[in-house]
Amino acid sequence: MKVKLTISYDGTNYCGWQRQSDKPTIQQTIEEAIFECSKEEVRICGSGRTDSGVHALGQVASFETNSTIPPENFYKALNIVLPNDIKILKSERAEDNFNACRSAKKKTYCYTFYTADTIMPLYERYAVKIDGKVDVDKMKKASKLLVGEHDFKCFCASGSSTLTTVRTLYDVSVVQENDLIKIYVTGNGFLYNMVRIIAGTLLFIGQGKLDEKVLTEMLEKKDRKLGGKTISSKGLCLVKVDYE
Amino acid sequence: MKVKLTISYDGTNYCGWQRQSDKPTIQQTIEEAIFECSKEEVRICGSGRTDSGVHALGQVASFETNSTIPPENFYKALNIVLPNDIKILKSERAEDNFNACRSAKKKTYCYTFYTADTIMPLYERYAVKIDGKVDVDKMKKASKLLVGEHDFKCFCASGSSTLTTVRTLYDVSVVQENDLIKIYVTGNGFLYNMVRIIAGTLLFIGQGKLDEKVLTEMLEKKDRKLGGKTISSKGLCLVKVDYE
Repeated sequence: MKVKLTISYDGTNYCGWQRQSDKPTIQQTIEEAIFECSKEEVRICGSGRTDSGVHALGQVASFETNSTIPPENFYKALNIVLPNDIKILKSERAEDNFNACRSAKKKTYCYTFYTADTIMPLYERYAVKIDGKVDVDKMKKASKLLVGEHDFKCFCASGSSTLTTVRTLYDVSVVQENDLIKIYVTGNGFLYNMVRIIAGTLLFIGQGKLDEKVLTEMLEKKDRKLGGKTISSKGLCLVKVDYE
Repeated sequence: MKVKLTISYDGTNYCGWQRQSDKPTIQQTIEEAIFECSKEEVRICGSGRTDSGVHALGQVASFETNSTIPPENFYKALNIVLPNDIKILKSERAEDNFNACRSAKKKTYCYTFYTADTIMPLYERYAVKIDGKVDVDKMKKASKLLVGEHDFKCFCASGSSTLTTVRTLYDVSVVQENDLIKIYVTGNGFLYNMVRIIAGTLLFIGQGKLDEKVLTEMLEKKDRKLGGKTISSKGLCLVKVDYE
């Protein structure tokens, strides 16, 4: 039987999603919880790997099980065992051919900044401080240039191996809520560090350090060096994954 | 010279405000930072002690100094030394007779709940989960019964020694923001655990476990046993302290 899990986590204390031999990760923590509940040694498949420090509100994972625990109750058993910074929000039976990674159609990430003169202890865990003034309208306008099917090679950290760097972004929205600036990005897939490079580049545009035409140039010239810097992982959150 | 500090902190990793011999506290951390910047061993005076785990957006403290650091720049020096979970938002020169505790006229606290079926990792640090349904309108209506000058003996944890248990609440507001329920309480002073007992009692009223008339009864009969339970400190935040 295939089970689908919807998962939220605070990534601060984990070395990302993917299992590593010597460091605590989200995947490993959940696999150990499954073992404790069902005595099965399973490998769960996430919709994608999140980096060290990245958070999730709605990560999705799937796994094969012979357990007698009803799939819709699996989350309750797992949550008893899991720490408070990783919890399963929902568990359900999925089609046998469901694969949280390959079946994913859309993903939405959110990158959060806050504006302040001083580091704000109550924001620091989930957001990145912006110094000085930011023109949010400029960021909103520029963000729309990224929507559509493009070769996002310039928005991909070096060292990643992928067949194609073409992806489709369905929406990029910049939202201001008091002293928070949130960038929501929805697409059919994301390259390594893509959202963090998009957020960093939009920030530079908002700060007047770059002109918005740099985005068009990055998409056209496909020169990685044009790309904005990859900003801190703690501002990034995987909001949701959509399936058919 | 007297200096006034406005401070924000994430209280999770501290045993409250007040200096203790063997455990890390906010007061001690700031005093050590002052020593590192000015080589002066000072005792800072907070507007009040916050309990272990309680957060602050605008705690205020004062201290006497002979340092040559200009008071309005003191915060910059301190913030270089302070950890990211305690930061000084502002420093300024105060009148010689200013005392962050005795000069305080009003304080505002906020207690935050969230409604969800499962523990939400991204809310857990600063809010307390509510199980089941809550009637927020009932909480809003009941909260107004607490406004005014009353003997809040029923809302004071036992073991506290204070000359009088009469306090004035200027405002109590219950605000719903999506899945968050926030209770703001502004008063001229607060008894030990008073906001946490108010929040716990209002929650029980919202859940239908208590009738709103329990509040009037608690204020009239002054019987501590009638009081609601003291709920977790992590949902509490000292928002601001007002002076003349």
